[in-house]
Amino acid sequence: MDNNSRAVGVFDSGLGGLTSVRELKRLLPDEKIIYFGDTGRVPYGTRSPEIITKYALDDMSFLSSFGVKAVLIACGTVSSVALEALQKHFSIPIMGVVSSAAKKACALTKTKRIAMLATPATVRNKAYEREAAKIDSTVSLMGIGCPMFVPLVENGYVGSDCEVTRMITDEYISKLSDFSPDVIILGCTHFPIIRDIIADSARRILGEGISIVDSGAEAAISVKSFLERNSMLNHDAHIAGTEFYVSDETHNFEQSASLFLGENIKSVTKIDIGDYMFAKNVTL
Amino acid sequence: MDNNSRAVGVFDSGLGGLTSVRELKRLLPDEKIIYFGDTGRVPYGTRSPEIITKYALDDMSFLSSFGVKAVLIACGTVSSVALEALQKHFSIPIMGVVSSAAKKACALTKTKRIAMLATPATVRNKAYEREAAKIDSTVSLMGIGCPMFVPLVENGYVGSDCEVTRMITDEYISKLSDFSPDVIILGCTHFPIIRDIIADSARRILGEGISIVDSGAEAAISVKSFLERNSMLNHDAHIAGTEFYVSDETHNFEQSASLFLGENIKSVTKIDIGDYMFAKNVTL
Repeated sequence: MDNNSRAVGVFDSGLGGLTSVRELKRLLPDEKIIYFGDTGRVPYGTRSPEIITKYALDDMSFLSSFGVKAVLIACGTVSSVALEALQKHFSIPIMGVVSSAAKKACALTKTKRIAMLATPATVRNKAYEREAAKIDSTVSLMGIGCPMFVPLVENGYVGSDCEVTRMITDEYISKLSDFSPDVIILGCTHFPIIRDIIADSARRILGEGISIVDSGAEAAISVKSFLERNSMLNHDAHIAGTEFYVSDETHNFEQSASLFLGENIKSVTKIDIGDYMFAKNVTL
Repeated sequence: MDNNSRAVGVFDSGLGGLTSVRELKRLLPDEKIIYFGDTGRVPYGTRSPEIITKYALDDMSFLSSFGVKAVLIACGTVSSVALEALQKHFSIPIMGVVSSAAKKACALTKTKRIAMLATPATVRNKAYEREAAKIDSTVSLMGIGCPMFVPLVENGYVGSDCEVTRMITDEYISKLSDFSPDVIILGCTHFPIIRDIIADSARRILGEGISIVDSGAEAAISVKSFLERNSMLNHDAHIAGTEFYVSDETHNFEQSASLFLGENIKSVTKIDIGDYMFAKNVTL
């Protein structure tokens, strides 16, 4: 097999990463993509850094068993908490969603005030603050933990007329009133599904002219330029396609995935993530 | 060690089971209780029966390592989905929350229409329907899946003035309008935390005079009578007390546990549930 025809691996705690896959497929239609959603252990964003890192190492072990040429961590929480641990233990190129989103937000902001909505674990970790400071030390970044967004999205409370999601979004966005950002990063790959509700709430509470950065979509652009820069693009069109693997039953995943991916999917395979458990005594 | 001085084991996917522990401590103040909350893999109620059973077998393996004299499954989902599998693989007496709640509800209903609010996995499983039919074949039981209640409770949306929880509760209770029950079983041990909101919604939407059955509290009463009937009560007052174990960091658990238990707790120990993984190839 030609080295470049190896697949690109993508993983997330569950369904959210499919919003990145949608972008990847659009930008790189010739690539083979292998997606893993750890639906048997979702959600990650309310767990401790230690558990998140442990689960992410298992996920990488699974993807690396396919001999993938690069991996996109399509999960804001893992990208923030465990990127370095993954890069330390695996020699495959691994990209998260943080640096490309921070770069885009720093390029867009005029007031130098950037907000970032994410899971509690991502906010606590402060990876976005560190990344933004590297790019532009005059930027202030404020993270808002949004623990209800993942359950709301996973349970289908996503319509623009959904009163409950609007109220919870208003509650989160109101915390930004004093800070008054001009850019909001969606730091979790579930959040683009309710982008319209978030944008509407921001407009009503914070005012017009706020840019929204989708971290998963920005990361897909980074993957494309990485493959281009390193002459790693696949040119064999027969290879193209996406394989889906999950760690719980496939039925629920198939049903919800269309919402995230914007198309119907078939052939989802269930695996036992316990079979890919990373060495227990590794120093994280 | 006197055989009766062995602890009573209690487990749940996370925090919910502590509402049962509160009742157990009140009814059996001399008993030693060992509680395990699988916080590293919570929630269970939106997962498949296979994964729920697998996790429950691990949880039982952990509790049985203490030589407990009996186990209360203080989790509606595990009680509905995995009780028989646990009883098949462990010789310790194991009690779930379903049969005692069904018995209480059948005793209370006059109209023979009982509603049951629980996680989607519990509703799909129909354990409550089977149990109620055994007690009184003239009873109809209607289960309503309430997937948002666990995240709402775990994220503190529990105050009686909480508009979001009220709206979601009204959405679930409205599904019972045509059925018009006179008893509502809280089939998940998280739900007693928002009992007042549920009762208020039922009063407004379904009318006065509806009885609410708390499955975790009923199960605690069953544990007491089981120990009495089998002369297994502990009489050594030095033994009394509760030990808490979790599979993710202890800090969050300590903070939230007071809400469920109604008192502050200390000395929570984190364990690696991967160390207690039940034999992989067992036939479930």
